[in-house]
Amino acid sequence: MRPHDEDRLLAWLRRRVGPGRPLIGDDAALIELHGGVALTVDTQIEGVHYLPGLDPALMAARLLAVNLSDLAACGAEPAYALLALAAPPGFDHQGFFRSLLAACRRHGVRLAGGDLARSAPTTAALTLVGRRRRGGRFLRRSAARPGDLLWLGGTVGESAAGRFVLALGGAPGFRAPVPVSIRGAAARAAARRAIRRHLAPQPQLELGAWLAHRRRASAIDLSDGLARDLHRLCRESGVGAEIDAERLPLALGFTELCAALGHGPLELALGGGEDYVLLFALPEGVRPPHRLGCTAIGRITARRAVVLIEGSTRRALPPMGWDHLAGQG
Amino acid sequence: MRPHDEDRLLAWLRRRVGPGRPLIGDDAALIELHGGVALTVDTQIEGVHYLPGLDPALMAARLLAVNLSDLAACGAEPAYALLALAAPPGFDHQGFFRSLLAACRRHGVRLAGGDLARSAPTTAALTLVGRRRRGGRFLRRSAARPGDLLWLGGTVGESAAGRFVLALGGAPGFRAPVPVSIRGAAARAAARRAIRRHLAPQPQLELGAWLAHRRRASAIDLSDGLARDLHRLCRESGVGAEIDAERLPLALGFTELCAALGHGPLELALGGGEDYVLLFALPEGVRPPHRLGCTAIGRITARRAVVLIEGSTRRALPPMGWDHLAGQG
Repeated sequence: MRPHDEDRLLAWLRRRVGPGRPLIGDDAALIELHGGVALTVDTQIEGVHYLPGLDPALMAARLLAVNLSDLAACGAEPAYALLALAAPPGFDHQGFFRSLLAACRRHGVRLAGGDLARSAPTTAALTLVGRRRRGGRFLRRSAARPGDLLWLGGTVGESAAGRFVLALGGAPGFRAPVPVSIRGAAARAAARRAIRRHLAPQPQLELGAWLAHRRRASAIDLSDGLARDLHRLCRESGVGAEIDAERLPLALGFTELCAALGHGPLELALGGGEDYVLLFALPEGVRPPHRLGCTAIGRITARRAVVLIEGSTRRALPPMGWDHLAGQG
Repeated sequence: MRPHDEDRLLAWLRRRVGPGRPLIGDDAALIELHGGVALTVDTQIEGVHYLPGLDPALMAARLLAVNLSDLAACGAEPAYALLALAAPPGFDHQGFFRSLLAACRRHGVRLAGGDLARSAPTTAALTLVGRRRRGGRFLRRSAARPGDLLWLGGTVGESAAGRFVLALGGAPGFRAPVPVSIRGAAARAAARRAIRRHLAPQPQLELGAWLAHRRRASAIDLSDGLARDLHRLCRESGVGAEIDAERLPLALGFTELCAALGHGPLELALGGGEDYVLLFALPEGVRPPHRLGCTAIGRITARRAVVLIEGSTRRALPPMGWDHLAGQG
């Protein structure tokens, strides 16, 4: 398969599902069932979405977090979860469920049902049901307008760096050894944080709630890399964007860590994926409160192109990043 | 793992989820979101739930059907679907989705979103959202009372026989060859029907709707075998049951087919699984209309035992059948 197969398949699906049914395209399906329900499903497969050998407890918390990130991007309030879990014999179901239930409680989610099967590799699909927030609206990818400022809810690239660190080491986990090839205190400390960021993403529900109460906001959660997800936001809104490379928020020690890993920081920031922060557009003059730690990185344009500004250079930014059907694009 | 691990794990989960939260246990989670929503998820894994090499179009239709059967058992009206699909390179996504969308249209279901990944074996988890039917109620496993009659919505064992026929032959499909070891016109014709029954189960939505409009009815869909699912219904209702082996509805030619396959008809009828017909309890005197083709097979008892009556013999019926974590129980 060629790159971008996932987007192409989704476009084909949308044509078949029919016009006037704008359900496929947002992070969650927003359905008008009894006054507004957001539905989302995400899958985590051992060896595809996470490294083999990951503690089932960590895997469970991560599964919930990446799903909650989709609800955050819709501005929805988490309510219910359904789990389909296929795992091989010997899988630690109790460790998995203890962790999942604890994480559900922290986020006000009720595990409402599921389906269990025996299979390898471990494959967990979690469906979340969210409500429209009281007094709020659902956020859509299609609401960005020329002149809006583009914002990021947190740093980008760090999760991908954490994935690379873990791929060099032993069993993945918070205590995974930092490989000796990563030298220097700054890079090694950054590697520790990157591991944690990769394994335990923090869904931006508070930011999603704040956005849901704006008059107009457009949002997407960054799962497949800033470049690819920005293209998606622009496509849904029928707009383009310019982003400034120098404004991209990077984690402390990230540049040193990238040097040690042999990856370009910009490459990881733009295409590393699994950041699980919100990328959002707001009318100029509307600014998220400081406590939410957001950064303006560019602007929405009427011209339908996605442009990266580096100093005095402007270049088209391709939708590089993770394609779930084709592998790294 | 030992047999019945799935039921044991579910019991453990229920204790952890806490009392007064009777969500886990019914075929779908019945949630009080905005006036009543039923949620269900089912997974189909190549090599676990269906034979390797099955046409993706058939697989898609089957995936929807087994999920709809859960909604039928709750008396819910199908509304939305979410798909999590993990498939290896070369998988016929278009064939799969064409079939899924056509089946969705037939049943009034809207595909509202999903998640795609690349992995083997092909693993598809479908979440369905159903509504409470107008003027109806949701059906629960816990509503059976002593004295109720127990009914079946169709024949049992035929799907399992179809699975055995397919396991003997080449590529699974409606035109799969009937093995030469199955002799005699009656058995061979029964084998053809059993293949179709196995590959294309028909969810009993009309029966579910009828039951949803009764004053009291308890129902479960038979996915793991009559014996195991009857035990579940009884456990949820705090009752027992007696069923009469001679009343179990069997498909035409089923006995001959079982003889050719070397399986006992009663064994398949009680424990074969994947029947996807409804097992339900109704107060005596309430009878489903003839057009729904139901058969009374026994009675709910106050004594908490599940008993099989064969002629003048009575014996305890163990919860044999399919356990998703332990394999055949």
